[in-house]
Amino acid sequence: MTYGKGRTYKKVEVIGVSDKGIEAAIQEAIGKAQSSLEKLSWFEVQDIRGHIGNDGKIGEFQVVLKVAFELK
Amino acid sequence: MTYGKGRTYKKVEVIGVSDKGIEAAIQEAIGKAQSSLEKLSWFEVQDIRGHIGNDGKIGEFQVVLKVAFELK
Amino acid sequence: MTYGKGRTYKKVEVIGVSDKGIEAAIQEAIGKAQSSLEKLSWFEVQDIRGHIGNDGKIGEFQVVLKVAFELK
Amino acid sequence: MTYGKGRTYKKVEVIGVSDKGIEAAIQEAIGKAQSSLEKLSWFEVQDIRGHIGNDGKIGEFQVVLKVAFELK
Amino acid sequence: MTYGKGRTYKKVEVIGVSDKGIEAAIQEAIGKAQSSLEKLSWFEVQDIRGHIGNDGKIGEFQVVLKVAFELK
Amino acid sequence: MTYGKGRTYKKVEVIGVSDKGIEAAIQEAIGKAQSSLEKLSWFEVQDIRGHIGNDGKIGEFQVVLKVAFELK
Amino acid sequence: MTYGKGRTYKKVEVIGVSDKGIEAAIQEAIGKAQSSLEKLSWFEVQDIRGHIGNDGKIGEFQVVLKVAFELK
Amino acid sequence: MTYGKGRTYKKVEVIGVSDKGIEAAIQEAIGKAQSSLEKLSWFEVQDIRGHIGNDGKIGEFQVVLKVAFELK
Amino acid sequence: MTYGKGRTYKKVEVIGVSDKGIEAAIQEAIGKAQSSLEKLSWFEVQDIRGHIGNDGKIGEFQVVLKVAFELK
Amino acid sequence: MTYGKGRTYKKVEVIGVSDKGIEAAIQEAIGKAQSSLEKLSWFEVQDIRGHIGNDGKIGEFQVVLKVAFELK
Amino acid sequence: MTYGKGRTYKKVEVIGVSDKGIEAAIQEAIGKAQSSLEKLSWFEVQDIRGHIGNDGKIGEFQVVLKVAFELK
Amino acid sequence: MTYGKGRTYKKVEVIGVSDKGIEAAIQEAIGKAQSSLEKLSWFEVQDIRGHIGNDGKIGEFQVVLKVAFELK
Repeated sequence: MTYGKGRTYKKVEVIGVSDKGIEAAIQEAIGKAQSSLEKLSWFEVQDIRGHIGNDGKIGEFQVVLKVAFELK
Repeated sequence: MTYGKGRTYKKVEVIGVSDKGIEAAIQEAIGKAQSSLEKLSWFEVQDIRGHIGNDGKIGEFQVVLKVAFELK
Repeated sequence: MTYGKGRTYKKVEVIGVSDKGIEAAIQEAIGKAQSSLEKLSWFEVQDIRGHIGNDGKIGEFQVVLKVAFELK
Repeated sequence: MTYGKGRTYKKVEVIGVSDKGIEAAIQEAIGKAQSSLEKLSWFEVQDIRGHIGNDGKIGEFQVVLKVAFELK
Repeated sequence: MTYGKGRTYKKVEVIGVSDKGIEAAIQEAIGKAQSSLEKLSWFEVQDIRGHIGNDGKIGEFQVVLKVAFELK
Repeated sequence: MTYGKGRTYKKVEVIGVSDKGIEAAIQEAIGKAQSSLEKLSWFEVQDIRGHIGNDGKIGEFQVVLKVAFELK
Repeated sequence: MTYGKGRTYKKVEVIGVSDKGIEAAIQEAIGKAQSSLEKLSWFEVQDIRGHIGNDGKIGEFQVVLKVAFELK
Repeated sequence: MTYGKGRTYKKVEVIGVSDKGIEAAIQEAIGKAQSSLEKLSWFEVQDIRGHIGNDGKIGEFQVVLKVAFELK
Repeated sequence: MTYGKGRTYKKVEVIGVSDKGIEAAIQEAIGKAQSSLEKLSWFEVQDIRGHIGNDGKIGEFQVVLKVAFELK
Repeated sequence: MTYGKGRTYKKVEVIGVSDKGIEAAIQEAIGKAQSSLEKLSWFEVQDIRGHIGNDGKIGEFQVVLKVAFELK
Repeated sequence: MTYGKGRTYKKVEVIGVSDKGIEAAIQEAIGKAQSSLEKLSWFEVQDIRGHIGNDGKIGEFQVVLKVAFELK
Repeated sequence: MTYGKGRTYKKVEVIGVSDKGIEAAIQEAIGKAQSSLEKLSWFEVQDIRGHIGNDGKIGEFQVVLKVAFELK
């Protein structure tokens, strides 16, 4: 990448879900998005939420994030 | 859907327009999005706006919303 | 376009980059988005940022914007 | 209206109240504003609130909105 | 109520769900909250969301709101 | 005022300035607005700012607020 | 209180009303909340609003705040 | 202007439109507002948006801004 | 849970504290809230903050979150 | 100061604490900042919070504000 | 710069003023900040405001921005 | 620290980067800030973002936070 050269990026909003933790939920979403979109450059976390199981434990983390990639 | 299993959702921003009311504008957008995207799971209203006719009546409702669906 | 008729728009988030200025960065993103999406109707600026070169000059403008088009 | 021609709009913040529903409260405000301001072009809902009666029913809807018109 | 007299209100956040529409979802939450809290005075809508059924129709409206009542 | 009856309010944004304190700045704006607008019903503080004198003391308080009145 | 030890706080949203000023309205809400909740630790102001009397004077201050206390 | 002296300002929300650029759209709104309101002191940009022509070029810039003037 | 059936949820704001990490602070708050409230369904993170010890290490994480449960 | 001349200001975020009231907390922060920074021009309040004593009285006000000064 | 390597950046809030336009006001602030801080990497625009002259023309642009640089 | 005594804190915005996780990125920034600023008291996370490597894995976490310390 060369700074100053005209170029365009696109941002897409995804939600990754994992019972392993916040980082794992982010990676889940990035891995899935990478396979259907083009090569991803960066992510921005928008919201962190989750499900609570009947036992009062965190059942899963749901992380809303935006992923960005260059439009060629 | 089973909680705790790794999965990924995508959110898309659409605007539904209808002269019938707010709920009809939401349904308009969901119906159109459903036909070009995959099966939708939920929606989130972002903004409610509208056009005003020459007679000072609400001409149409424009509802900005996000719709979400699972990325398989 | 006729007001009051049911219709649906979609908004997509893009980032335009240019070393010419803010308007040029917006045009960069619109031009690129127009070629891969359908005919665009309007844009909304979300954020204005940029890179600073080693000489302390603005190296490039990065304008985050949403572009909207009708879903036919 | 011709796009590209220099022109100016003004936005005014009003609150419409009705016991009929959200759409009726919006129309209430637009009708009253139309009679004291110039011809209105569009509205943007800012907030939806309301009064609750002694019987635990919604007593009225109070919708805060902005209405816009061209400054000639 | 007399203006100017010292008094205190409490706000509680609830979510009303209904398949009838936005106003019905608000009334659902107010009715349930009224039965477990003290007499409610007003409500403020925070968010409007909903579930989408398999048929691409709005399955239900979920309205997040705050209800307020006087602490005696 | 009777709840449930259709009616409309207007909100106007003003800034009151005073070297006496925050409450005095609010009263300054309300007093001036009352004389040029119709009878005011309530106010909402938006921002509190101020000038700092050469001696490092608060020179004046500038309180941005909205005042509301009924459109008859 | 010892930093680092696992513990949990709860925040409750209240509105204090007083014709004496902003600080008095905050104290009004804290005093009333303290008598029905557990020992309070801190407060956070959310909004400052008020009623305007027929004479164009501030009739009362309404301060929306959150109060927090430890859940034992 | 003397700091510390009680005074009141009013803010009005306007939208300037121009096909020349962002600064021109701001000037368009200020010029029109100046002719119908009193002498303006400052402006604050709220939003930058625009129309996109059939040729994929920016058709016009629409800049939402607030202008402020002293209430004498 | 059956979608479409009228029901009501309540959200409560809590702060979980732990020196183990962000996930542990969330679990701390959920575990404590679960024991004094009804069965919890989900959580939403509002803020992540923390204390810094004299040695320049993170002393504890303080996570502000909302927990939600159905009002039966 | 002459309007139109190129110049640069810097904003710094500080928190003033006082048991006297909100204005006193602002002055506390400005006085301390003035002694370590250059001559301050204005302030902007960001947040108002405080500690509550064991007796249920406001123990102190904590006002988060930004102070600005010219970079010469 | 190598991605993945531990490093720390600092952001500083500045306001650039110029009668030439928005880009010139940004460059004004960056140039002045560069001379008193370390080498700057990027900027983020926070707010665009300005002064209006007696002739109803934009007297100057005031752009609030954050500049970031690496803490070595 | 004694509550009620006049004192002043300063907040500084930093960005910590680490490939280990979110907590590690926070600690990275605190450790570096501690060495150039005075003794830090607390931190507040503002944003969580990151770089994505060519392999579709999270390359690094970038956590924007504010750190606060007492101005003596």
